Amino acid sequence: MLVKNTRSIKLHTFSDSRGKVSVAEGEKDIPFKIERTFHIYGVPQGEERGGHAHRETEQVYVCLNGSVTVILNDGTNKEEITLRDPEQVLYVGPLVWSVLKDFQPGTVLFVWTSKHYDATDYIREYDEFIKTAK
Amino acid sequence: MLVKNTRSIKLHTFSDSRGKVSVAEGEKDIPFKIERTFHIYGVPQGEERGGHAHRETEQVYVCLNGSVTVILNDGTNKEEITLRDPEQVLYVGPLVWSVLKDFQPGTVLFVWTSKHYDATDYIREYDEFIKTAK
Repeated sequence: MLVKNTRSIKLHTFSDSRGKVSVAEGEKDIPFKIERTFHIYGVPQGEERGGHAHRETEQVYVCLNGSVTVILNDGTNKEEITLRDPEQVLYVGPLVWSVLKDFQPGTVLFVWTSKHYDATDYIREYDEFIKTAK
Repeated sequence: MLVKNTRSIKLHTFSDSRGKVSVAEGEKDIPFKIERTFHIYGVPQGEERGGHAHRETEQVYVCLNGSVTVILNDGTNKEEITLRDPEQVLYVGPLVWSVLKDFQPGTVLFVWTSKHYDATDYIREYDEFIKTAK
């Protein structure tokens, strides 16, 4: 991928006549200890979410229903990725500005994170992000 | 709840005009360190899943789309719970036999677990479960 500190990861998935199971082991498929997760849903069409970066927190995104587009930006390069496959997850490391857009109705975005909530870990001002990322 | 080693937990949820976010902090909302997660999806109607217990592994279930019914059994008491709310999660401790049924089309069941995969932690024979649970 073009944007630094990001990469696509395919989860181990077991498929049979009873359906599919995708497995995410912490410190293996998810490349950190899973301290916290959150899931985003019920997003009205046309709304955007995200619009911040993290100083240290690492995250992995997966879209479990519907689809959503992630705009990734490392301060130099910018890239858009549409997530819709529950097997395919997106690692987003520190100092990546990400914006979520084009939520389809019923979309569920699930995120694994490497740290407990800490307000000081967020960079919410784009100018500050650009200075910090350089 | 009637079945021992099980309980319902409500996740902290932030709701505004941009949608909802439900947060699960490990060792807090999720009452253990999150070592592993898995998600089940694409289950054809009429299929059942689960049908085993764990010796030590603790799990928390949430339904992120659609709905699914969980049959819980501690060897003495039995209870059915239908999951459909992404804020409401179900803790299932060790030595609970659980069966998943009545998956609606598009259902996604997400599970947080307290241990990495270990085949010896599974009890797959019901007779053995009943003996162990007593």
